[in-house]
Amino acid sequence: MVDEGDEGRGTTEVLSRDDCFRFLQSHQVGRLGVVLKGYPVIVPVNYALDRGVVVVRTRSGSTLSAADHANVCFEVDQVDPAHRTGWSVLVRGLAEDVTDLEGDDVLRASRAAGADPWVGERDRWLRVIPHEVTGRRIRPPELAAVELGGYL
Amino acid sequence: MVDEGDEGRGTTEVLSRDDCFRFLQSHQVGRLGVVLKGYPVIVPVNYALDRGVVVVRTRSGSTLSAADHANVCFEVDQVDPAHRTGWSVLVRGLAEDVTDLEGDDVLRASRAAGADPWVGERDRWLRVIPHEVTGRRIRPPELAAVELGGYL
Repeated sequence: MVDEGDEGRGTTEVLSRDDCFRFLQSHQVGRLGVVLKGYPVIVPVNYALDRGVVVVRTRSGSTLSAADHANVCFEVDQVDPAHRTGWSVLVRGLAEDVTDLEGDDVLRASRAAGADPWVGERDRWLRVIPHEVTGRRIRPPELAAVELGGYL
Repeated sequence: MVDEGDEGRGTTEVLSRDDCFRFLQSHQVGRLGVVLKGYPVIVPVNYALDRGVVVVRTRSGSTLSAADHANVCFEVDQVDPAHRTGWSVLVRGLAEDVTDLEGDDVLRASRAAGADPWVGERDRWLRVIPHEVTGRRIRPPELAAVELGGYL
């Protein structure tokens, strides 16, 4: 599906679910969106994927650890301001803290998925179970009319 | 303020308000966080700054146009996964659609600030009035002990 742009501007293309997961697989850093006391909050995190589920590590008592059992979103993008192109993927879903499922397959799989912390101790494992995965790509004006099969 | 990391990991440094605005000034693309039917949603947007206020353009009927008078957040970051460094800035505030203030100084200033749309028609002007601006920077382990005055 293509949203036609104005002359001299790019067009927006809706990504397939498969493309969304290919983009998610290709990256290590995204942003978790949570609602905290009525405010949306965005926190950049590194992550891993475990069978379509986003796995992030966080610290006890942090903003993200409060997201357990809450509706959250997870966003990944790559944007090139010079060429005004880019893509973004948004996962909407439920956050589940699986840290205390000791011995459970889900915790084992989460640990195996990776997401090694960059900073300090991150003792909680948070999984984002997707309800919906959407994405879009902006194509530059000069390429808007041609097919970009191998662009990803 | 520095959050000491584990050995071999980086440290987190809290950015001053001035540094947050320097980072905001240095970028063109960020992410707006809004709450939509109980779900947080993150939308990448290009933006401009008008005297400390984030200005974005959006389309009538879009997710973002529904954010008028709502609590929103705006996030900008730059992350280097290879070196595990980066910074992020989070603006929490109130979104205000100023499009219909025809002839008003605020609309005039918003237009002057820029934020030229990359795709299609973006007929609404949205301003994010900050309540709180926070930021942090991750320093790599090998540099964690030295001063990084000129890093920005």
